[in-house]
Amino acid sequence: MFPFNNVILASKSPRRRDLLKQIGINFSIEISGIDESIPLDLPPILMAEYLSKEKAKKISIKFPKQLVIGADTIVVLDNKILGKPKSNKESFEMLSFLSGKTHKVITGVSLQCINNNINTSFHEITKVTFNELSDSDISYYIETYKPFDKAGSYGIQDWFAVNVEKIDGCFYNVMGFPLARFWKEINELI
Amino acid sequence: MFPFNNVILASKSPRRRDLLKQIGINFSIEISGIDESIPLDLPPILMAEYLSKEKAKKISIKFPKQLVIGADTIVVLDNKILGKPKSNKESFEMLSFLSGKTHKVITGVSLQCINNNINTSFHEITKVTFNELSDSDISYYIETYKPFDKAGSYGIQDWFAVNVEKIDGCFYNVMGFPLARFWKEINELI
Repeated sequence: MFPFNNVILASKSPRRRDLLKQIGINFSIEISGIDESIPLDLPPILMAEYLSKEKAKKISIKFPKQLVIGADTIVVLDNKILGKPKSNKESFEMLSFLSGKTHKVITGVSLQCINNNINTSFHEITKVTFNELSDSDISYYIETYKPFDKAGSYGIQDWFAVNVEKIDGCFYNVMGFPLARFWKEINELI
Repeated sequence: MFPFNNVILASKSPRRRDLLKQIGINFSIEISGIDESIPLDLPPILMAEYLSKEKAKKISIKFPKQLVIGADTIVVLDNKILGKPKSNKESFEMLSFLSGKTHKVITGVSLQCINNNINTSFHEITKVTFNELSDSDISYYIETYKPFDKAGSYGIQDWFAVNVEKIDGCFYNVMGFPLARFWKEINELI
């Protein structure tokens, strides 16, 4: 069903690997090593797309025959961008900030294949509403799940699910990869 | 973190088992054997709650000390209730009916514990929007995934994810168990 062979995922995220497997895609993995922490003077949507493109392009140059997939996920509330927390303290601050409010999760995705002239990038936005989080819930979560590899400091696919009142948009986008949008864009390439 | 020991899940759904494990609950499983196919002259919301209660009560009588969890999920579009498809043909009809539209997934949940006077039932509604499905996509899906144990004939957690444009509400409710609402109701019992 998937129209491309020779696919590379340019991401070290285990969630993205699981999601591509879920929809039956065979792929290999190459890590771009792009420094995501560089503060870029771009609006959030453009930043997620920009970083996804940087990741994909860096790998695409090395593997020009293959379809390379790059992705980058950020969390945005009140125009403040939340990436991955660097410490317990930062994690606690992020979750306290998100408590009881609705934030946006933005994933940028870039598809690159030099030999087939494929160079397309897009983004998907999902709104996520949290219940009020108590300090003890936040501390329990950070201690138990150590969410330091996750934008916004939470995983909607682990215990934290009990705190997510609702979402509006694509669930898998919140996990790090917008499956339905990706499928649509892939089918527009062929 | 979970305030009850001695929990029984009165469901044979592997998704519900996975979801309770995801939020760290220890439980055993007892199957009620309630006939879900009985056509009940009730509005959809009440039907899902009614069936969840029947399942939980039947087990609760045998295990009066334990907290018994019953659940029932249905899919509703244009006042038509879709349960589990009984054949390839019915599966095809269901997915064709849902194609390109927004339907509701309703999960009823019942919590029963005779010795602690716990007798509470609730339901959660999530709106799910499908992309247009081609006949070949539907046939591929039925052939490959055999979705006969799933209300509405799809699993949002498998390949079918590529066809789900968006949801509005709790994702886990679509999988068969509304984790956040469940957690909230449990904490109101103590």
